[in-house]
Amino acid sequence: MRRISILLLVFPFLLNATANAQTKIVGFSEAGTQKELELEKAFDAGLNPVNQDEWLKFLSSRPHHVGSAQGKANAEYMAGLFRQWGYSVEIAQYDVLFPTPKTRLLELQGSKPYKAKLDEPVLPEDKTSAQKSEQLPTYNAFSADGDVTAELVFVNRGIPADYEELERMGISVKGKIVIAKYGGSWRGIKPKVAAENGAIGCIIYSDPEDDGYAAGDVYPKGPFRPEQSAQRGSVMDMPVSPGDPLTPGYASTKDAKRISRSEATTIMKIPVLPISYADALPLLQSLGGPVVPASWRGALPITYHTGPSIAKVHLKLEFNWDTKPAYNVIATIRGSEYPDEWIIRGNHHDAWVNGAADPLSGMVSVMEEARMIGELAKKGYAPKRTILFCGWDAEEPALLGSTEWVEDHAEELKRKAVAYINTDGNSRGFIFAQGSHSFEPFYNEIISSVIDPKVGVSIRERRYAKMMADADRTTRTKMMGNSYQKLSALGAGSDYSPFIQHLGIASMNLGFGGEGSGGEYHSIYDSYDLFTRFKDPGFVYGILLSKTAGRVVLRLANASVLPVDFSSFYQTVSDYTTEVKTLADNMRLETEQENQMVKNRLFDVALDPAKTYKAPVAKEPVPYLDFSKLDNALVEMKTASASFKSQVQKADQLSAEKLVSLNAILYKAERSLLQEKGLPRRPWYKHQIYAPGFYTGYGVKTLPGVREGIEQRNWPETQAYIDLLAQTLDNYTAEIKKALAFF
Amino acid sequence: MRRISILLLVFPFLLNATANAQTKIVGFSEAGTQKELELEKAFDAGLNPVNQDEWLKFLSSRPHHVGSAQGKANAEYMAGLFRQWGYSVEIAQYDVLFPTPKTRLLELQGSKPYKAKLDEPVLPEDKTSAQKSEQLPTYNAFSADGDVTAELVFVNRGIPADYEELERMGISVKGKIVIAKYGGSWRGIKPKVAAENGAIGCIIYSDPEDDGYAAGDVYPKGPFRPEQSAQRGSVMDMPVSPGDPLTPGYASTKDAKRISRSEATTIMKIPVLPISYADALPLLQSLGGPVVPASWRGALPITYHTGPSIAKVHLKLEFNWDTKPAYNVIATIRGSEYPDEWIIRGNHHDAWVNGAADPLSGMVSVMEEARMIGELAKKGYAPKRTILFCGWDAEEPALLGSTEWVEDHAEELKRKAVAYINTDGNSRGFIFAQGSHSFEPFYNEIISSVIDPKVGVSIRERRYAKMMADADRTTRTKMMGNSYQKLSALGAGSDYSPFIQHLGIASMNLGFGGEGSGGEYHSIYDSYDLFTRFKDPGFVYGILLSKTAGRVVLRLANASVLPVDFSSFYQTVSDYTTEVKTLADNMRLETEQENQMVKNRLFDVALDPAKTYKAPVAKEPVPYLDFSKLDNALVEMKTASASFKSQVQKADQLSAEKLVSLNAILYKAERSLLQEKGLPRRPWYKHQIYAPGFYTGYGVKTLPGVREGIEQRNWPETQAYIDLLAQTLDNYTAEIKKALAFF
Repeated sequence: MRRISILLLVFPFLLNATANAQTKIVGFSEAGTQKELELEKAFDAGLNPVNQDEWLKFLSSRPHHVGSAQGKANAEYMAGLFRQWGYSVEIAQYDVLFPTPKTRLLELQGSKPYKAKLDEPVLPEDKTSAQKSEQLPTYNAFSADGDVTAELVFVNRGIPADYEELERMGISVKGKIVIAKYGGSWRGIKPKVAAENGAIGCIIYSDPEDDGYAAGDVYPKGPFRPEQSAQRGSVMDMPVSPGDPLTPGYASTKDAKRISRSEATTIMKIPVLPISYADALPLLQSLGGPVVPASWRGALPITYHTGPSIAKVHLKLEFNWDTKPAYNVIATIRGSEYPDEWIIRGNHHDAWVNGAADPLSGMVSVMEEARMIGELAKKGYAPKRTILFCGWDAEEPALLGSTEWVEDHAEELKRKAVAYINTDGNSRGFIFAQGSHSFEPFYNEIISSVIDPKVGVSIRERRYAKMMADADRTTRTKMMGNSYQKLSALGAGSDYSPFIQHLGIASMNLGFGGEGSGGEYHSIYDSYDLFTRFKDPGFVYGILLSKTAGRVVLRLANASVLPVDFSSFYQTVSDYTTEVKTLADNMRLETEQENQMVKNRLFDVALDPAKTYKAPVAKEPVPYLDFSKLDNALVEMKTASASFKSQVQKADQLSAEKLVSLNAILYKAERSLLQEKGLPRRPWYKHQIYAPGFYTGYGVKTLPGVREGIEQRNWPETQAYIDLLAQTLDNYTAEIKKALAFF
Repeated sequence: MRRISILLLVFPFLLNATANAQTKIVGFSEAGTQKELELEKAFDAGLNPVNQDEWLKFLSSRPHHVGSAQGKANAEYMAGLFRQWGYSVEIAQYDVLFPTPKTRLLELQGSKPYKAKLDEPVLPEDKTSAQKSEQLPTYNAFSADGDVTAELVFVNRGIPADYEELERMGISVKGKIVIAKYGGSWRGIKPKVAAENGAIGCIIYSDPEDDGYAAGDVYPKGPFRPEQSAQRGSVMDMPVSPGDPLTPGYASTKDAKRISRSEATTIMKIPVLPISYADALPLLQSLGGPVVPASWRGALPITYHTGPSIAKVHLKLEFNWDTKPAYNVIATIRGSEYPDEWIIRGNHHDAWVNGAADPLSGMVSVMEEARMIGELAKKGYAPKRTILFCGWDAEEPALLGSTEWVEDHAEELKRKAVAYINTDGNSRGFIFAQGSHSFEPFYNEIISSVIDPKVGVSIRERRYAKMMADADRTTRTKMMGNSYQKLSALGAGSDYSPFIQHLGIASMNLGFGGEGSGGEYHSIYDSYDLFTRFKDPGFVYGILLSKTAGRVVLRLANASVLPVDFSSFYQTVSDYTTEVKTLADNMRLETEQENQMVKNRLFDVALDPAKTYKAPVAKEPVPYLDFSKLDNALVEMKTASASFKSQVQKADQLSAEKLVSLNAILYKAERSLLQEKGLPRRPWYKHQIYAPGFYTGYGVKTLPGVREGIEQRNWPETQAYIDLLAQTLDNYTAEIKKALAFF
């Protein structure tokens, strides 16, 4: 035995464990495994890239944002196909606030005046780029209306740390318009923090460092962002809550009571406009003030200054604050054994413009999964649990379609939803996944059984090989011979957010990427032409995504025991706890050091006397926090989850009735991680383990109440959320114990 | 006692130990200390920035490269001043090979032809920039003559690792012309490595990332490199040996036998030309081939490609291979007690063009030191040891002036030279120093006694404060409360090289910097106008350099016991030994890991199938080396040096005669670190502890025979040099033991 395990450790690739070699997969009996693997073989064999190509071509043929003619046509096209494949289909409509621009004006005044073009040019190499009359212009949805004129200040990424640095340089943004680079945070953070610091307007531009010529050849030579292209996108305050801002926490059905726009808390308070780097260049050249810190520089051929500018900038924005119908396509195939247990699979179908990559490359994978499952069901392989295939509308403005649907069906979902599996775009490269940590062994088993045809090894092995190739010596030592893939935590930025963070439905988000990078994001160049040239020619990875997500759906639908692994959850939460403790310890040490250095005048003495720059001042010391309740909760969970892991092997012996009850406990366990009061200053986010960062947006914050409390140096709140977290974990352990009682 | 030492540790600044507080300095009795401190007080009081300003203005008034009229005039001007200050002065002439350009042509052929301008424009804001007829054009001295036409390949910094990366990308430079960025190595490495890889020509350009607009505002708005400016400089193979290539190892006196140019080994084998980023842009835009790795990118507004170019590049260079007189100014003040013990202080006086910063800002500090020492000598404070103030000529082409002088006086220097103290340019900011490690406590004592008037603390405290302010948490923890400054090791790049590396004369190199950065280096804009605006307005740091180096010279000249600390040398060499062992251990581990990954096909599997990129192949395993002799030598040295440190306290009790003998042992100890056979493939470099890197140039390699052996994976040579190093250290310990015998 030992010899074999060493071989496994050292030569994982030589064994090349494929589906064929397996006799038992998690959640299935041996007989069940054979049946499931046969099903998956048939599933794989039927997948056809030609379908994905055809659907992507149609769906991306015209701009299809929420409220557009093509958006509606796409919903109906998809609904028609689902019906054809044997699904019962509903188009679930919600009426959502969707602002579109009426006036967009940005001009630099003074001696070298410049009027921003704010236009993405037609390219002969890109057929759909010429559909000018249907394209949404470049803008940020949920910007405020405004007409402001002021000096300009460059704020780097526009996150709180940047304003601290500006403050040290003696630069204030009060009453100014700020210009920030895209990246480093979700875009909506930038105007929010700018407004908190007193700015009256915000411009966001795509620096060529990030997705323009510095990243690679620009379109049409390569896939990166050309100089006149700008990134559209929402700036609603989604870290507070996504969804229609006029129906907070409930569904925006036709007759729902709506609050007024002025009452809505998540609409941005200042005008915001995204621009291209061609439009940004003259603005940045107008800036005076000190040279920026080296890490703030972009790739434009200038010396970057903070400003303020001498000449003023005039920004005028007006929007049509219209309500538009969002059409969610919900296709259902009823479970043959457990119709009231739902596996939900989704991707959004709306785009900012033509959206070939975002979102359609994921949507067509979902559709091909649905087609094959429908076809197999007709042949007698009906899923045991109910599967819902969802095409969400209005994801781009603020996860509107999915959030309203989830809020509408909250009670039913809490009872029935086993899991939600999301995708949102796809391209060549390596599998990546975020998800509830209890799915980790399940996920690893699946990615071991999907082979990347380009290199002939499993997608798990390939991702591992890439991580090893890119790693430093220390990381290689840790990972050598162990290709196990951790699931990253879910933050925000796609439709899983309402499922997991609001309702506590265990979720996953899947995709391939890393070799199909480009700069087409949220521009008119995210087109069929660009996608099929650069991002996934031949839909090789589109099919791989169908295979991967298809297995996730099929195994969840057919498992006798749901593949929930409490031990993985325990291990990860234990690691997160170590992280937040280390965060507090390091902050304490750093604060002590810095305060000592402030006292000894080291910062003053180190400064260049010829420059205006303020030395830091002493900070309040970081107290020791009481983690004992949390530590005790983890000890309890460790024991219970380990017991369950060994006991669950005997689940085959349980009666059918007991299995149903056990499974209900397993999939509802994630609900116990919610707290009704939610997170500080954002009660919509109820999950205590995962949330998008209040000041990072996309970036996940794990144990958010605790971690953000430490980051914000709010010690009473941190302590309160440590205790609440301990109680939450105790609730979860209570569920594990209920499950244990079956054995 | 303990309490006080803790206070010292925690509040070094509050104590603010200045010269006034000291009662005993290293090498002096208490009475001697009082006298020395009085002398230094008088020295400081007399220093006058107006002198430095006046001299710098005159010396930089016209271009003054070796062989120029102004070069000769400057030597005579300085000689006249030294004489006026009471020195006996010699102008020591050597006749050295100094190529200057006759033809410079660089053009891009093909459909978008471009002829490089190769010219730095006159700026109205810079008076001396208009002296066109006297300026040396932009060129690399000791380039080969050549007329080559070929495709162009971009090679990043042009160091060996870059060619390994190109090889993996499937790009060869054989028969091609390469274009490399300045930086990352000494410039002469670039054509050397290019030629080793089969290139037939080499272009080096200044990317704006390094010292152009990305670093800061360009001249005349700020001090950084404008788009048409290029960096002149030598590309002679100085890591093999500096000095006149036609008189290798001996002085190029008028009648010396000269080898032919074709016999000279250090002249570059291919044509090399430096260009501006304006001239580089069209060349880089012509490149095809893959996009470069992200770390290779510069700050030009393009996507950087490796090439080759489709269009060919034509490079034609012809030089006047003239012999020119180099005028070293040697000013001597005879020691009152020990005339045959020499303290040598030097800076070069030749420049590429007007050279206000490089070298004159250092030269005028040397001159002001000499003036005050002369003045004090007239008042009865004559130094006990002989002091030589040297203004070297022809440093820029290849340390020609100093090397020929050192080779000329080698025997006398070996007997008499106590130390060589070098400077080479100066600007605002923080003290930095490299030097023989036995001077470390001596250096620390001195920098504690010089106060930076801009911030009111010692230059040691200020440098420490800067290091702490810039450090990460771990480094801060290590350094907290301990402002002791390690001396960095001496590499190459200025006139100390022949003294320490060829003759084993303990040396130091001193300067201020960090707040006066610019991009004027080796351009016509290194002018009086730029220097006094940006680099050291008011010569505040010029005077601080005089104070610092002046103390070094005065204390060395007057000490009863020379301040040589064997324990510091031991500690540093012991640290270097740990470094090279760790280097070998890490290389062994990395090789094992990589070979395992090669075997398991991880690199193959990780590669993007759509790109040409070769996975690494297995390497020969790294053997275990026998460090036992070296370890034993270190143990011996540790004991002996510790004994000496305690015994030397009693040196006051020695007779005058014995003191002379002891001092001779102390200053000659550094000679025992030489080995006549020198370093592998470069016998001119005899020092076994310090050398410029064979493949880095400027960058020092400590324990070079061992370290470079490991880096080159040449195991037999590494083992031989470990053993030779052990023997060398034993020789040094034998000197310590001789010194110990006096007690």
